[in-house]
Amino acid sequence: PNLHRIAVIPGDGIGKEVVPEGLRVLEAAAATFDCAFHFDHFDFASCDYYQQHGEMMPGDWKALIGGHDAIFFGAVGWPETVPDHVSLWGSLIQFRREFDQYVNLRPVRLMPGVPTPLAGRVPGDIDFYVVRENTEGEYSSIGGRIFPDTEREVVIQETVMTRVGVDRVLRYAFELAQRREKKHLTSATKSNGISITMPYWDERVAAMAADYPDVCWDKYHIDILTAHFVQHPDWFDVVVASNLFGDILSDLGPACTGTIGIAPAGNINPERRFPSLFEPVHGSAPDIAGQHIANPVGQIWAAALMLDHLGEGRAAAAVVRAIEDVLARPEYRTRDLGGEASTAECGKAIADAI
Amino acid sequence: PNLHRIAVIPGDGIGKEVVPEGLRVLEAAAATFDCAFHFDHFDFASCDYYQQHGEMMPGDWKALIGGHDAIFFGAVGWPETVPDHVSLWGSLIQFRREFDQYVNLRPVRLMPGVPTPLAGRVPGDIDFYVVRENTEGEYSSIGGRIFPDTEREVVIQETVMTRVGVDRVLRYAFELAQRREKKHLTSATKSNGISITMPYWDERVAAMAADYPDVCWDKYHIDILTAHFVQHPDWFDVVVASNLFGDILSDLGPACTGTIGIAPAGNINPERRFPSLFEPVHGSAPDIAGQHIANPVGQIWAAALMLDHLGEGRAAAAVVRAIEDVLARPEYRTRDLGGEASTAECGKAIADAI
Ligand SMILES: CC(C)[C@H](C(=O)O)[C@@H](O)C(=O)O
Ligand SMILES: CC(C)[C@H](C(=O)O)[C@@H](O)C(=O)O
Repeated sequence: PNLHRIAVIPGDGIGKEVVPEGLRVLEAAAATFDCAFHFDHFDFASCDYYQQHGEMMPGDWKALIGGHDAIFFGAVGWPETVPDHVSLWGSLIQFRREFDQYVNLRPVRLMPGVPTPLAGRVPGDIDFYVVRENTEGEYSSIGGRIFPDTEREVVIQETVMTRVGVDRVLRYAFELAQRREKKHLTSATKSNGISITMPYWDERVAAMAADYPDVCWDKYHIDILTAHFVQHPDWFDVVVASNLFGDILSDLGPACTGTIGIAPAGNINPERRFPSLFEPVHGSAPDIAGQHIANPVGQIWAAALMLDHLGEGRAAAAVVRAIEDVLARPEYRTRDLGGEASTAECGKAIADAI
Repeated sequence: PNLHRIAVIPGDGIGKEVVPEGLRVLEAAAATFDCAFHFDHFDFASCDYYQQHGEMMPGDWKALIGGHDAIFFGAVGWPETVPDHVSLWGSLIQFRREFDQYVNLRPVRLMPGVPTPLAGRVPGDIDFYVVRENTEGEYSSIGGRIFPDTEREVVIQETVMTRVGVDRVLRYAFELAQRREKKHLTSATKSNGISITMPYWDERVAAMAADYPDVCWDKYHIDILTAHFVQHPDWFDVVVASNLFGDILSDLGPACTGTIGIAPAGNINPERRFPSLFEPVHGSAPDIAGQHIANPVGQIWAAALMLDHLGEGRAAAAVVRAIEDVLARPEYRTRDLGGEASTAECGKAIADAI
């Protein structure tokens, strides 16, 4: 059987509770679909590690995990002890950038049994992907502060978009749209207000579209686009967005389908020069950490995205089906979905359903 | 009676259709509440004007409208003939900046008779304000492009926050929260990803909060905040946000209450050194322009905000009540609300209800 070497990094908070459920499901998938996993566990990229070592990761982190086939990641952040911008920039954002995971792929799908806050929507109505640029744009670390602690204080931060960076994520999104039934791509912009970078983004979308005449595309400013997510989630098929806009849309989309607790993300280096990283969209959730009530579905769905990336398409599809089966049954729903199941009860049910 | 001198600028598209309804309601309010209006009409700040003159506004625009008590504005933008960033930066964004309208105040309220896309929400559940910084932040025009038309092309745009600019809008928001019953302020941030300007914003919020011990405050990253708008719109009372985040939240909020067609905005210079500008949140809507089906309620509610600003609080309250009365009656609803009324039928009904 195909052996996949996976770096496992649970991180902080509920990351430590949901990652084991993801592993449980991966083992079940391996047993059924004739593949095998070797898991290496790492305790860095966590605030505990930071408190012991004064940094989020060891100096040789790239050597330690750069050779793995993928990274299975929980969540990072514990603002009580380490400020978020320190913990995130010292770990997750490093991975994305150093391993050139320039696509952040986030499915948004209304699942059976998950109560949506939107009136009258049923499974099948909402089913799209957010393709988020994941290495540049608004998430730069360029800028600074002048005249600190005075009335003249000014703080500046730069948004940086490169031709290479914009084009490659657009190409990924157009190709994804081309493979889907509706072949419809929507671009998130704000070129009426953000007057330099966003008109550039629009320009590159229009140029790229010429290469994909069979994909029909449109664009919306981010403000009205968030409104359309709520009022017309059925309009969307593939939504491509800059780093910040993609971040917003990929929390808002899952909220429209009921909960961000079930949403996964693939941080993908499509050329496979570096390992890709798979994680739930939710964070470390300090407010419910340690109670074993976190919803493991986001982590398990992330495992499905990872299986897909590793070429185990049948196993991936089986995991998604198992998630749908289990979500349809009230007794395995966690508290955020109105149920009473523990993290492990939900995870076991999905593993058993494979 | 108090005489108010108003500069009227309808702009483009449905702006030209909804502004007359706003004026109709203002006349009705004046007749009932013993005040008077003098309206001066201007055709600049429109794409028609641009096509005739090669610029959005005449060189002496500040002298022409700077002495008025307020500006009653429709909408600007007609992308078929003028790119949005040209038309907007040549008009609306100029007004905001040159007249130092540093607060963009946007009420979000679920009105009777307006079908919300959210399941189970009723009037009373959703009632808050977005206070948006309106002059700086992400809407800078600083930046540029290097190596154009090559693979090395790079585009950069700067976000600029000043101590003065951040503090004054935060103070306005805290004072608004203090006057309200719940005394609850929520700050929109993204300090885990936008690592220079957003931690600064957080710092200033924390510092300002010390002056308002009776206001209880919290903060959310913009991604999860958009999710909470959909899942828990009842959590919010006053939401303060940077220029871009406020832009997003004040389209998303109204979408959660059913339509952005009824939402108003006050672009306010609280010190009254310059005229403030009142407009609907919706834009010029080229897709429905000329059909006389646009919803005039956003423009009319903007008139109520203007009345408030001009010290005509009783008239303002009467306009809001008239809006509520009319929205509750299906026969006066415009097409976007599932009705068949024309723009003028809806506007007349509100004027009559005062
Ligand atoms: C038209 C556009 C520049 C404007 C903005 O982003 O400020 C609009 O969306 C608004 O909210 O007033
Ligand atoms: C934690 C944060 C830096 C991160 C992001 O904004 O990218 C998260 O919200 C995400 O979406 O993965």
